[in-house]
Amino acid sequence: MNDGPGRLPQFRDLPHEEGGARSAWGLFGPDDGIGLMNLITPEKTRDAARLVRRGAMFPLDVQLGFVDPPFFDRGLPRHTLIERRPGRTFDDAYDNLFPQASSQWDSLAHVAARPEQFYNGATRAQIRAGERNTIDHWARRGIATRGILLDVSERVSERGGPGESVAVTAADLDEARDRAGVEFEPGDVMLVRTGFLSWYGDQSRESRVRMSRRESTAAPGLERSESMAEYLWNAHVVGVASDTVGLEVWPGEEDPGPFGSLHRILIGLYGLAIGELWQLDELARDCRADGRYDVFLTSAPWNFPGAIGSPPNALALK
Amino acid sequence: MNDGPGRLPQFRDLPHEEGGARSAWGLFGPDDGIGLMNLITPEKTRDAARLVRRGAMFPLDVQLGFVDPPFFDRGLPRHTLIERRPGRTFDDAYDNLFPQASSQWDSLAHVAARPEQFYNGATRAQIRAGERNTIDHWARRGIATRGILLDVSERVSERGGPGESVAVTAADLDEARDRAGVEFEPGDVMLVRTGFLSWYGDQSRESRVRMSRRESTAAPGLERSESMAEYLWNAHVVGVASDTVGLEVWPGEEDPGPFGSLHRILIGLYGLAIGELWQLDELARDCRADGRYDVFLTSAPWNFPGAIGSPPNALALK
Amino acid sequence: MNDGPGRLPQFRDLPHEEGGARSAWGLFGPDDGIGLMNLITPEKTRDAARLVRRGAMFPLDVQLGFVDPPFFDRGLPRHTLIERRPGRTFDDAYDNLFPQASSQWDSLAHVAARPEQFYNGATRAQIRAGERNTIDHWARRGIATRGILLDVSERVSERGGPGESVAVTAADLDEARDRAGVEFEPGDVMLVRTGFLSWYGDQSRESRVRMSRRESTAAPGLERSESMAEYLWNAHVVGVASDTVGLEVWPGEEDPGPFGSLHRILIGLYGLAIGELWQLDELARDCRADGRYDVFLTSAPWNFPGAIGSPPNALALK
Amino acid sequence: MNDGPGRLPQFRDLPHEEGGARSAWGLFGPDDGIGLMNLITPEKTRDAARLVRRGAMFPLDVQLGFVDPPFFDRGLPRHTLIERRPGRTFDDAYDNLFPQASSQWDSLAHVAARPEQFYNGATRAQIRAGERNTIDHWARRGIATRGILLDVSERVSERGGPGESVAVTAADLDEARDRAGVEFEPGDVMLVRTGFLSWYGDQSRESRVRMSRRESTAAPGLERSESMAEYLWNAHVVGVASDTVGLEVWPGEEDPGPFGSLHRILIGLYGLAIGELWQLDELARDCRADGRYDVFLTSAPWNFPGAIGSPPNALALK
Repeated sequence: MNDGPGRLPQFRDLPHEEGGARSAWGLFGPDDGIGLMNLITPEKTRDAARLVRRGAMFPLDVQLGFVDPPFFDRGLPRHTLIERRPGRTFDDAYDNLFPQASSQWDSLAHVAARPEQFYNGATRAQIRAGERNTIDHWARRGIATRGILLDVSERVSERGGPGESVAVTAADLDEARDRAGVEFEPGDVMLVRTGFLSWYGDQSRESRVRMSRRESTAAPGLERSESMAEYLWNAHVVGVASDTVGLEVWPGEEDPGPFGSLHRILIGLYGLAIGELWQLDELARDCRADGRYDVFLTSAPWNFPGAIGSPPNALALK
Repeated sequence: MNDGPGRLPQFRDLPHEEGGARSAWGLFGPDDGIGLMNLITPEKTRDAARLVRRGAMFPLDVQLGFVDPPFFDRGLPRHTLIERRPGRTFDDAYDNLFPQASSQWDSLAHVAARPEQFYNGATRAQIRAGERNTIDHWARRGIATRGILLDVSERVSERGGPGESVAVTAADLDEARDRAGVEFEPGDVMLVRTGFLSWYGDQSRESRVRMSRRESTAAPGLERSESMAEYLWNAHVVGVASDTVGLEVWPGEEDPGPFGSLHRILIGLYGLAIGELWQLDELARDCRADGRYDVFLTSAPWNFPGAIGSPPNALALK
Repeated sequence: MNDGPGRLPQFRDLPHEEGGARSAWGLFGPDDGIGLMNLITPEKTRDAARLVRRGAMFPLDVQLGFVDPPFFDRGLPRHTLIERRPGRTFDDAYDNLFPQASSQWDSLAHVAARPEQFYNGATRAQIRAGERNTIDHWARRGIATRGILLDVSERVSERGGPGESVAVTAADLDEARDRAGVEFEPGDVMLVRTGFLSWYGDQSRESRVRMSRRESTAAPGLERSESMAEYLWNAHVVGVASDTVGLEVWPGEEDPGPFGSLHRILIGLYGLAIGELWQLDELARDCRADGRYDVFLTSAPWNFPGAIGSPPNALALK
Repeated sequence: MNDGPGRLPQFRDLPHEEGGARSAWGLFGPDDGIGLMNLITPEKTRDAARLVRRGAMFPLDVQLGFVDPPFFDRGLPRHTLIERRPGRTFDDAYDNLFPQASSQWDSLAHVAARPEQFYNGATRAQIRAGERNTIDHWARRGIATRGILLDVSERVSERGGPGESVAVTAADLDEARDRAGVEFEPGDVMLVRTGFLSWYGDQSRESRVRMSRRESTAAPGLERSESMAEYLWNAHVVGVASDTVGLEVWPGEEDPGPFGSLHRILIGLYGLAIGELWQLDELARDCRADGRYDVFLTSAPWNFPGAIGSPPNALALK
């Protein structure tokens, strides 16, 4: 590992990735499969815990099955109530549970940097074997750090609203950060509220069916640009989670270009955790009310060997 | 609600339940489906967060699928890796996922107090409809409070070891508490380490198959007695979680008697959360090392409407 | 029961159903849940078996998973290979198996005649309890009878092709029957080949995704008209199976009218089995080659109590 | 292929398999993955169909979920009723469906002849890829041939009954064949009724739980001996299906020896289909009544690429 989170290189100092963007491979050693989560040191966790000032608690996982139908051909969970002794004991079981269909973390095994090459050089076979990058590597550590809420929902509303393909720029994020009165510190998680999920909850079944289809999905999200890639890296955050469908603005460009897919850059080149469909509304209300946008964020992903995604099982504490 | 956690009645002041034991029904109002979790107030959460002194972090969920075969006819999860774009994008899906087969919280819908009557009078139909007691009622609040580790594994070893039906008494718990140098405060979670799960990990497949069968399951756990029921109530804890199979000593008496089933009393009459098969080994090692047995415990159960159990998705922070 | 299949009433003699069409309720007694399958008597089966002249055999179930993505929001099966002893013993398991997603029989529990009333007066509660109309009632009898192939694919091609919403008329069916040189006899199964499934197999992924969506599904099928309802009843067939999506032409009329849904009439009022997405291509080739369009059809639906649909598990023998 | 089923070698003419028994590899060519099913020629099917004399029909699949709990750690199906339009349209879906948990065919991919080598030299990788031996290779042909019922239940009763580990000998089978008044002809399926499944249906839950466990499973079945291997080969049957748990007597010898596992020989060396847990009771009653033990047997296994087992979806017709 490098000699301290304060010494992380700036975007412009990262080596160029062939085909564009820049790569952070090797920053935590050649075998690393944890990525920027390495920045969550005990000191970071300890300091973040001090943000719990009132004891207010905000679960950030949306109800399982809330996003119905799921986007991108994922499925809805089937839940079976098992009455072991009628009227006396209930158990339950789940089938058809797709982590990517609801609030989720995407691990470093989700999207490759290049064909057959995942973050830090992990191969498809290593992913399949659960040897590197899969979410259990995070789960065995746990995630407890500082979270910063950036509420850009007003900017989204001004430009068409959460049902449209609105690109949130680096300037938008920085404006929200400034308004929140916070500075990023290495190891933070950025929580970006676009307003999508609360808007989604008000849509008709018909409209939700329509937007669930890949070719008609339109949702606000991070701009696919070099300035965004630069902003996110330089913030030295370990993860970016949002209340929208795919974190980045949807749909993407036909011509992907070097910055056409933030997933490829953030997951594949940076080793950054991506969170999608998180429920940030109540937290945002509270932040507006008390003017504090930094929280203690805890998250315990599922510990299943070789798994790709997981509900964040996240709490924001203030 | 009552006028403060400090004013909770003592066991001897609770009304008698027909057929033995005592009942806490109504303590938080006639419609309550949360139970003792009501004791986790913002102040409680805030104070507990102050226990994070070093930033050490201990995920308490054992690896999904570690308990193999599962106890009591539950199933093993089947995980499907979905390669959306070969060599470039992985998703995943789960089937046959039984919350009760691994580390879990049992909600107040798991075991009834009396036939057809669950905690606080919830009916079977209300459980089936997810209207009361199901785990989503906890999930929407989140759980963040003080946890107290009581390590009774030495007492268990002296009396036959973690593969035997060793009853842990109230005196054992209190001795561990005393050794830990802590006092219970209303709203705590009690974490009882018997040594079962680490012992289990060393057993042969053959032995694990044998013990998974209901009639040959033998495991240490809480004594089924009035003194235990009294001790747990008077501690005013919101949950008791353990590293053993069914929290209480297994098997139970043939003649259940009023205290033959702690599940019935703790879940059905008290409204107390029961945790089973939690991984407490690393935490215990750390507590022995630094002499501090109180932790900040965060847990975000799944938010699925009408569900019975959930992985705790728990972190212990020190 | 009536006193013989030869004595079945004609369409014009059936009582009027409120709101249009005609009803065969009660024809086989007030408690019947088998419907027209009652016409398959031992004599019928025996005579049909004599159609096996060459020993040619045609499985009529398309490969599970061939229809991908499935129509109408059904799911694709997930198949798990279980290697019990590595390199020596394989087992397997299926999840997410939707009978209606592939070749299928729809039982008399699939579609109601009127809200809350299924064929012959079965209630929603009786369906839910598996007491009447569900597919196990057919499975316990088995299905072995004469099948008649009617190949209308040329007519469909002339009118736009199998990718279009082409209505196959009663006259088309009768023309095909005439060309085949057969007469219907009570208890036959009608096999209607539109050419859809072979056309489907040639479509691009993109095109299949598009057509899988309810609002853009267009497929040939039986005309929704009184003449069709009359033709099918008067043929006294026990089932009508086709290689198209929903048997009847898709989409339907906006104004349903009395004949707007053949499913309601055939299943709900007649007690007739509907088959969809059957693979009829090889059989059709053979019929064209030898000029014989009548076959011995055997089908063993799944025997699961209270189930709605099933793969036909059908063989056509000549 | 060889030049006719009449010319199949006798057991004593088959080459010795290393380690004992004899092998039929190569008999149908080096790439064959169908095995003895090759003996079902059109002529065979045609002649067998003539056995349908009365039109009596006997479905041979036991109700899905009847064997509860399943043997050998397989699972019970979970069936979800999907009410698409309340009170009007039902669909359904299955999870946790294990073909080997109920009436089944085992394909030539189920058990290897030698480590890593399945029937006719198919490799583990070829099985995993569904290239050879998997059940879809039979499904695409269909199965329709002569079935011979051999009822040995009286012999089983005399020697301890269907709840005991009673070995059915070649002499028992031949006695039943003689009593039935039939001779085997190449391409037949042998249906061996031990009485197990009807006895099983009368057992208590407790008893069924006990016997489901591998180490306490005891069931009648074919003797594991050279004379049995010789008898089954020389009968030139394509499959042997029985109403008992594992076809062969259970448990097996500790010392497997060359004939210790019939599965290895029948599936791995002969390419013979094994059927287990078939429901033969009603058929047997009918055979006793009319004195005819030969039937027309039709079976349409699931057509899922690369699958191992399948319900037989079988009908016996007389």
